[in-house]
Amino acid sequence: MITIKRAVLIALGDELLSGIRREGNCAWLAGKLSRAGWKVECMEIIPDGNSSLSPFLEKWIGNTDLLVLSGGLGPTHDDCTRQALAAFLGTGLERADEAYDKILSRYPDDMRKNLENSRDTQGIIPSGTRPLHNPAGSALGVAFEKDGTKVLAFPGVPVEFTAMAEQELSGELGPKNGTWASVLIAGWAESLLKDRLAPVINRRELHITILPAPGLIEFYIRGTPENVARAAEDVRALVPNDWLPEGAGSLAGAAVMAAAEKRLTLACAESCTGGMVGAALTSIPGSSEVFFGSAVCYSNTAKKSILSVNEEILLHHGAVSSLCAAEMALGAQKIYGTDIAVSVTGIAGPGGGAPEKPVGTVWFGLADRGGVETVKRIFTGDRETVRTRAKNFALDRLWRKIREAPGE
Amino acid sequence: MITIKRAVLIALGDELLSGIRREGNCAWLAGKLSRAGWKVECMEIIPDGNSSLSPFLEKWIGNTDLLVLSGGLGPTHDDCTRQALAAFLGTGLERADEAYDKILSRYPDDMRKNLENSRDTQGIIPSGTRPLHNPAGSALGVAFEKDGTKVLAFPGVPVEFTAMAEQELSGELGPKNGTWASVLIAGWAESLLKDRLAPVINRRELHITILPAPGLIEFYIRGTPENVARAAEDVRALVPNDWLPEGAGSLAGAAVMAAAEKRLTLACAESCTGGMVGAALTSIPGSSEVFFGSAVCYSNTAKKSILSVNEEILLHHGAVSSLCAAEMALGAQKIYGTDIAVSVTGIAGPGGGAPEKPVGTVWFGLADRGGVETVKRIFTGDRETVRTRAKNFALDRLWRKIREAPGE
Repeated sequence: MITIKRAVLIALGDELLSGIRREGNCAWLAGKLSRAGWKVECMEIIPDGNSSLSPFLEKWIGNTDLLVLSGGLGPTHDDCTRQALAAFLGTGLERADEAYDKILSRYPDDMRKNLENSRDTQGIIPSGTRPLHNPAGSALGVAFEKDGTKVLAFPGVPVEFTAMAEQELSGELGPKNGTWASVLIAGWAESLLKDRLAPVINRRELHITILPAPGLIEFYIRGTPENVARAAEDVRALVPNDWLPEGAGSLAGAAVMAAAEKRLTLACAESCTGGMVGAALTSIPGSSEVFFGSAVCYSNTAKKSILSVNEEILLHHGAVSSLCAAEMALGAQKIYGTDIAVSVTGIAGPGGGAPEKPVGTVWFGLADRGGVETVKRIFTGDRETVRTRAKNFALDRLWRKIREAPGE
Repeated sequence: MITIKRAVLIALGDELLSGIRREGNCAWLAGKLSRAGWKVECMEIIPDGNSSLSPFLEKWIGNTDLLVLSGGLGPTHDDCTRQALAAFLGTGLERADEAYDKILSRYPDDMRKNLENSRDTQGIIPSGTRPLHNPAGSALGVAFEKDGTKVLAFPGVPVEFTAMAEQELSGELGPKNGTWASVLIAGWAESLLKDRLAPVINRRELHITILPAPGLIEFYIRGTPENVARAAEDVRALVPNDWLPEGAGSLAGAAVMAAAEKRLTLACAESCTGGMVGAALTSIPGSSEVFFGSAVCYSNTAKKSILSVNEEILLHHGAVSSLCAAEMALGAQKIYGTDIAVSVTGIAGPGGGAPEKPVGTVWFGLADRGGVETVKRIFTGDRETVRTRAKNFALDRLWRKIREAPGE
């Protein structure tokens, strides 16, 4: 039995309402809380200033289990969260010198003098509330409980908000041992996957969430430790070739991990993705152990001169063809001297389509020590969507190819 | 004199509160409205279902100029926006057959039959309200005015929301001739730029917003047509070498545009960015006219074999050095046969740093027909931040190099 606690998240900031910056703190915390079994009832994005916050405090304190505020704790006149909380509590503001000193002690002398000037703004809290240490910035947070609602106010600077939320909510957010599991699954459409996993989805003792991730679907399971462990095992058995190992948070991560385990080296040849596959692989720390490079050959001349694609193929079949994808993969494998290479060549649009090769047509080549194979997909969407889907598909096939290949 | 109208935006959706999807519709519209001179007073993200919306209708209708709802108009039992609006208006629901027929006429026969089944859910509106055509999906929107508030309800599917918002608010959102201008400026820190542009910023007749964009700062000006035109001209004169031409929405766009104008061809050699520069350039439609490719050479072996970087340089100076950056740029220029090439080689972290070359050190090379030059930067931040900053800096320098170069 999972107890569902309720939370409300409020972000203050004129810049969030004018399109200058997109709200991220509450969205991030909502995800964390939901995974930990909370129900987020409402998120509100409101202007800076005292008068805008007060009605929301009246509305929610006493009517939810947790109220988290983001922003309004800095040193400027716009920062009125402390004042609004004090007014709500019917109390004054007082200095929290011990807590502020703890923050100042982290700064070098010259900055400390400057921050001393902010003691009466960033270092004060409503009387009777608890000051919260800020491990990533200089403004104190505020905590109190009233009428059954736990209230936490954090600064809006994202790095400070997340550090303080993790610090203050660690007991609530941390993965409670075994009460959840996440399985990342590659290569499935969501509706087909739901059918396949129905035997697990339909178990009443589990709480299942299906989340889309780039090129993947995340199957998120909550319940008692033994039910969760059994469900995760059953899910993996139902899609035996498609689940990512733990620690691989993405297709690129899974490919780099698999290559490192087998001591295999990788390269790419990219046309329509223009470097996106290489950029994804190199986003993984440590990828330099296995990834040697990507030959982005956007022009046909470069395909010929760098990847040794046969001119006849380009003339008679075009750059978006099985034969060209095959030669690109073999060319990359050769010039980088790697065990495996993947190639991508397609028509991302908006121009360049033809009846027999519509926009979205993409050919992929996969070369290993045993030879080369190709596969075609037709993706829908605009230029960036086609490119992103092509990148994800290339990474998916590369990951599978690495697993099939014999080790070094 | 600019009239400021007020808007409130509400997004419905359990998936927005559970961290499954990040709210984007209201954030997008807030940016659009703010640019058109509106003040967005509040954005609220609330659960699906009738009961959650009603108090917000009570609260805002009559208290703001525009209320936009996103979501809750689909065919499932969770979709209760129509019901909540009808209850608020004290009226019933009725079929808007003409409007729904107009939507169905866009679909092929087999789908039309299916959608016919949804006529009593997606095709109904509260009596006395106006049905809104949906050019991108099958659910009708709803519009009415009450107590001085214009209420618009759009489906939550992003492509439908944006299409309908642009359709219904075109009079409000469209760039009112000359009442705004946007100047994108490259290569400046925000605080220094504010000092430089103070003579324009301090004009009382203008409303100025400074917005960060990737590698750029956007200087956004509102006011009367003649004041705006003069201010934009003065801004450009104050940063004569740093403003992007109209139509170039990004550094990559500016580089591709400049190269196309001068009929110059481009290539890259990338190490730590792993393909990000090539991916950015190829994100611009038509880039194939000027961009031939990028040699992503992550390993030293690839730098030697593909870009002909001298082994002695790698041994004595390392891959992150001025000499290596120079040879990489020259190598890319040569193998792709282009007029100009840019190279990037650096330490993105988290590993690989040393006291004399800390994490964040990145060397850039720029080769043209006249020779090659290099420049070093040390970027702060985590792996992805360093990589992104390096990508933006490379594009900035590439753009400037193209402008300096003589045309073909």
